[in-house]
Amino acid sequence: MDYPLNCVPDHPKESTKHVCIFGTGDFGRSLGYKLLQCGYTVIFGSRDPNSSNLIPKGAEVLKHEEAAKKSTIIVIAIHREHYDFLTGFADILEGKVLVDVSNNLKINQYPESNAEHLASLLPGAKVVKAFNTVSAWALQSGTLDASKQVFICGDDAKAKEAVAEVARSLGLTPLDQGSLLAANEIENYPLQLFPMWRLPFYICAGFTILIFLYCLVIEVFYPCATNKEDTSYLIAISIPNRVFPIVSLILLALVYLPGIIAAIIQLYRGTKYSRFPDWLDKWMLCRKQLGLVALAYAFLHAIYTLVMPIRYYVRWWADKYLMNQIKGNTTYPFQNHYAWMSDSYVALGILGFFFYMLLGITSLPSVSNAVNWREFRFVQSKLGYLTLVLSTAHTLVYGGDRFIFGPFYRWYLPPAFVVSLIIPCAVLVMKFILVIPCLDQRLTKIRQGWERGAKC
Amino acid sequence: MDYPLNCVPDHPKESTKHVCIFGTGDFGRSLGYKLLQCGYTVIFGSRDPNSSNLIPKGAEVLKHEEAAKKSTIIVIAIHREHYDFLTGFADILEGKVLVDVSNNLKINQYPESNAEHLASLLPGAKVVKAFNTVSAWALQSGTLDASKQVFICGDDAKAKEAVAEVARSLGLTPLDQGSLLAANEIENYPLQLFPMWRLPFYICAGFTILIFLYCLVIEVFYPCATNKEDTSYLIAISIPNRVFPIVSLILLALVYLPGIIAAIIQLYRGTKYSRFPDWLDKWMLCRKQLGLVALAYAFLHAIYTLVMPIRYYVRWWADKYLMNQIKGNTTYPFQNHYAWMSDSYVALGILGFFFYMLLGITSLPSVSNAVNWREFRFVQSKLGYLTLVLSTAHTLVYGGDRFIFGPFYRWYLPPAFVVSLIIPCAVLVMKFILVIPCLDQRLTKIRQGWERGAKC
Amino acid sequence: MDYPLNCVPDHPKESTKHVCIFGTGDFGRSLGYKLLQCGYTVIFGSRDPNSSNLIPKGAEVLKHEEAAKKSTIIVIAIHREHYDFLTGFADILEGKVLVDVSNNLKINQYPESNAEHLASLLPGAKVVKAFNTVSAWALQSGTLDASKQVFICGDDAKAKEAVAEVARSLGLTPLDQGSLLAANEIENYPLQLFPMWRLPFYICAGFTILIFLYCLVIEVFYPCATNKEDTSYLIAISIPNRVFPIVSLILLALVYLPGIIAAIIQLYRGTKYSRFPDWLDKWMLCRKQLGLVALAYAFLHAIYTLVMPIRYYVRWWADKYLMNQIKGNTTYPFQNHYAWMSDSYVALGILGFFFYMLLGITSLPSVSNAVNWREFRFVQSKLGYLTLVLSTAHTLVYGGDRFIFGPFYRWYLPPAFVVSLIIPCAVLVMKFILVIPCLDQRLTKIRQGWERGAKC
Repeated sequence: MDYPLNCVPDHPKESTKHVCIFGTGDFGRSLGYKLLQCGYTVIFGSRDPNSSNLIPKGAEVLKHEEAAKKSTIIVIAIHREHYDFLTGFADILEGKVLVDVSNNLKINQYPESNAEHLASLLPGAKVVKAFNTVSAWALQSGTLDASKQVFICGDDAKAKEAVAEVARSLGLTPLDQGSLLAANEIENYPLQLFPMWRLPFYICAGFTILIFLYCLVIEVFYPCATNKEDTSYLIAISIPNRVFPIVSLILLALVYLPGIIAAIIQLYRGTKYSRFPDWLDKWMLCRKQLGLVALAYAFLHAIYTLVMPIRYYVRWWADKYLMNQIKGNTTYPFQNHYAWMSDSYVALGILGFFFYMLLGITSLPSVSNAVNWREFRFVQSKLGYLTLVLSTAHTLVYGGDRFIFGPFYRWYLPPAFVVSLIIPCAVLVMKFILVIPCLDQRLTKIRQGWERGAKC
Repeated sequence: MDYPLNCVPDHPKESTKHVCIFGTGDFGRSLGYKLLQCGYTVIFGSRDPNSSNLIPKGAEVLKHEEAAKKSTIIVIAIHREHYDFLTGFADILEGKVLVDVSNNLKINQYPESNAEHLASLLPGAKVVKAFNTVSAWALQSGTLDASKQVFICGDDAKAKEAVAEVARSLGLTPLDQGSLLAANEIENYPLQLFPMWRLPFYICAGFTILIFLYCLVIEVFYPCATNKEDTSYLIAISIPNRVFPIVSLILLALVYLPGIIAAIIQLYRGTKYSRFPDWLDKWMLCRKQLGLVALAYAFLHAIYTLVMPIRYYVRWWADKYLMNQIKGNTTYPFQNHYAWMSDSYVALGILGFFFYMLLGITSLPSVSNAVNWREFRFVQSKLGYLTLVLSTAHTLVYGGDRFIFGPFYRWYLPPAFVVSLIIPCAVLVMKFILVIPCLDQRLTKIRQGWERGAKC
Repeated sequence: MDYPLNCVPDHPKESTKHVCIFGTGDFGRSLGYKLLQCGYTVIFGSRDPNSSNLIPKGAEVLKHEEAAKKSTIIVIAIHREHYDFLTGFADILEGKVLVDVSNNLKINQYPESNAEHLASLLPGAKVVKAFNTVSAWALQSGTLDASKQVFICGDDAKAKEAVAEVARSLGLTPLDQGSLLAANEIENYPLQLFPMWRLPFYICAGFTILIFLYCLVIEVFYPCATNKEDTSYLIAISIPNRVFPIVSLILLALVYLPGIIAAIIQLYRGTKYSRFPDWLDKWMLCRKQLGLVALAYAFLHAIYTLVMPIRYYVRWWADKYLMNQIKGNTTYPFQNHYAWMSDSYVALGILGFFFYMLLGITSLPSVSNAVNWREFRFVQSKLGYLTLVLSTAHTLVYGGDRFIFGPFYRWYLPPAFVVSLIIPCAVLVMKFILVIPCLDQRLTKIRQGWERGAKC
């Protein structure tokens, strides 16, 4: 549910609910402010209640011990380094629900999570980890456009439920993550910045720069060096429109290559019960990301191609081509052969892009959650290879006669699209070999747990 | 899971499960029908059991008191105004699970939610709010393409779980919303019709109409008034294709303007602990919607532009342009300058649109739930400003030389795209000022809870 | 949360958690391997502990009875046919949590689910159904890109929570599906391969082939038979670009036709309390799928149309058209009428496609879960009919003058687009009749539970 105010409107009854907050730092104050807005009675616990002048209006400030007595839920909004002082009044905290909202500065900063540390200091209290993934600023300003999920974990089910109830009444969605062992994960979570995207990003950036330079040499430097021709205007669209499809095709092939390498390793070793090399594991784990970048590049390629007839450069050459016919008083005759080539190359590209899009849509979390494993495999494997076959065929037909004009190669460099075909063709050939019944049956047996000893 | 029949197939065992329904109105009958289909034994409670002739086949109809005795779960499918009569046999309802399925006709119709009202009338019963968000028609026809979520709330955990179990066996997804205090929200929920979209809709409609009229004056009325030229055919595509990009750019700028105003207010006040003016709060809460409309308009602009070469009007003028060259026996030479301008303007537009799409995809609920706050901020803020910069640059390069031809202005009105640049440029300039280290540091400090007293 | 390793990092503490696995088949070993990775102590139960040599390193292998004593959670990874032997040591399994992970080979293979069968054999044990939807291969290789949902059901809440905790610590998302009655569903789930898509697929394939052959006759066979002209190159793009929009429009109309038929049946019968014929029920349940295929075809139509100016065939004819003007020394004058027709036909198509896309986006699970029933109805019904009206108008304006040139029909066959208009126009006319106040009010009354007896 989406509510503009992100909290249940004030109820007179609710004001009987109390929450105590230890710590008057920014997060504590923001949470207190929000709790007050949603009808809670908020008591701050502070070392020096009189000097705390930034407290939100309507909240009470008391000494820690007194504040703790007023509520069964106590939010510990202080730094981990200061947890020790809580042991001083462990008897008052006995049986209370302590909500650890702390975050660290680095992933895995301490050997043990803050919440587990707190629980070990105060074995009599019920420690619950929660709210650390929520931004103080977002809480206060009410602009929670981002995830409203509050990950909660703890060893006491009732304590967790009480905290979940508080989260719900602030308009947030509590998500039970299990026992306090999950606290480590939950504390690392807000520190991540797309960790799964780092490796794919470097791979993509590397290929993009390489292919861009390759095209630059062939299409801008070569004409400049040999004919003093200025073709720098190709940099804006024409060259990107070579780089995008080429890198897209290579990345798509790289999505399916590790699966083939894994199959070869398993066939060679004759077992699935031994770990793959580390680089292969890492590669397999970033296939989804590689595929999504490949899709993004294919999308850009599609639009860059569709704008062709609008571009001044393209229109000028089309006009010139026509005027040459008129001046020469000739009409180039219609050639069925060309019509077939041109149309089938375009059609293959469109169909490839279409299945690419389908793959992308099924990788949306809400869609992939709605399909079972068999269906997911069907889409990702069958449709994925179909896409790879269509895209490779698109490039091959595009190439057409151009492959053989070797002497036409500038500085003996083959056109960039020829380079792009190496990996996809290799992947398709290897896949084709692997689906030969003899090998396929053996691989299936290995993946069902069989180990070497019988022969194919 | 998605099942065609939306309920667990009949089990002989299940028929031992009983549900009693008070009220033989439409919703009660539909729910009873569905429960019977899913293997439940259904007993209706009615004032006059003999006159109830629309009861689904297989259900029993008894007097309220007798019906209530047969089941621990009693669905109260009667109007709030008639709740009073239930107090007549409060002793029988003692300890029973009462499911309040009622809806109101208006948002916040009563000071207290129906479910809370019921609970106050029958303090001995366990009241659970549920099923009110499900349509009777959808329940019965089995065409639950819409949300299968059943929001459940109540003060008794076991009672909630029992109701959740019933929901699950009807093929629905129960969602625990906490204590009975949430009933108010749950009762308001089905009455809403895109409440968050109202303000953005008016803003967008206003700008769209204004810009449309502006373009109409310049491109249709002016030629008609001065040259008696009929250019009304521009209304179908050419003018919309000015309106869409202009409004899209303005709306995108309006998404980022309130954040800048908020920053200025905070810098001026020297604190974050005071509320923003009401209009700013409302504006900030509809940024997502404004952004989505801007994306939709950008999408329309993209397609309207891509169809250009197919349009008769465009082809006719292109042909005429070419024939003029041929008749004059001249060839306009190729100009690197034009090629650069044309291509870079198009490329900026495509890249802007691409990042726009990325922003749109990350605002899908299932995607934004999968990223943490830091990642969400990164995408929405960094990518958002990148999109704004690219879109503004796209418009500026499009303008090119056209800005300065003041005398060329029709009726002294500047071309519409010039008007569209005012807000985006203002936003970018202000943002540029705010990232100056001196101001940026101060703002960061304020947002971390610091208040005035020190100087920058 | 998305973690690269799909499991909580090793904790020294966790190694005190024990899980026992009965059965050393592939799934048992894979699960054991994964549990070991995540810090569990794993004990396998086997008939002949010494001969089990494929056991993952670090796991212990004991006789079933001894293994069972070491853990409260016992995963039953053996075939249903062998469940009987467990009764031999029912006393040891008394009070233990038995996790049934089995799958069948066919949907509804047995009258009673495996888990219920297990529970009936061992009434003293707490049977929980879980993990059967997870792939062994995915578990072991860590490549869980697919759904991480683990459906759990069982009659004992604490047993379920214990199993959910194990699932969470493997990086999976447990989903409570209720009591053991849900086991049947959960066991059928992984065997499905898009069951909801079968009927829509056949419908779409049928229409696609039919229209394709129809177009083939008119556009390839006819010129070949009458003029010996070879137009086979039209097969790659031109003919598909007729088939896609035609089938798309028909399918979109088929989405709204069953609703109209249902309304007519209800009006005729004067009640909503009688089942629709079976074919209508089936039809209504595949409307979403029909709509999505229609959207996919509309998308393909859009791209196939946008590439027109790039195609050799189209460019050649455009050039020829221009050269004819030049040779004849004539200029076809600009015709406002044509400009209007061409532009409005294109604009209607674009707007129709735009609303089509909106419909598609709102049918994404995460989006449709975020709207209530009223909003969903608004989008799917109002926007859906708007799309149908726009698409039909698009086709009608495209037809333009072409309808009346009967003698121009090849072999007396009307152009394909005329055929495509029959169903949409029929649907729109019937809808128009149904919204006449007199009929509409009556229908509304019937849908609110009213039955015949009064007159309109």
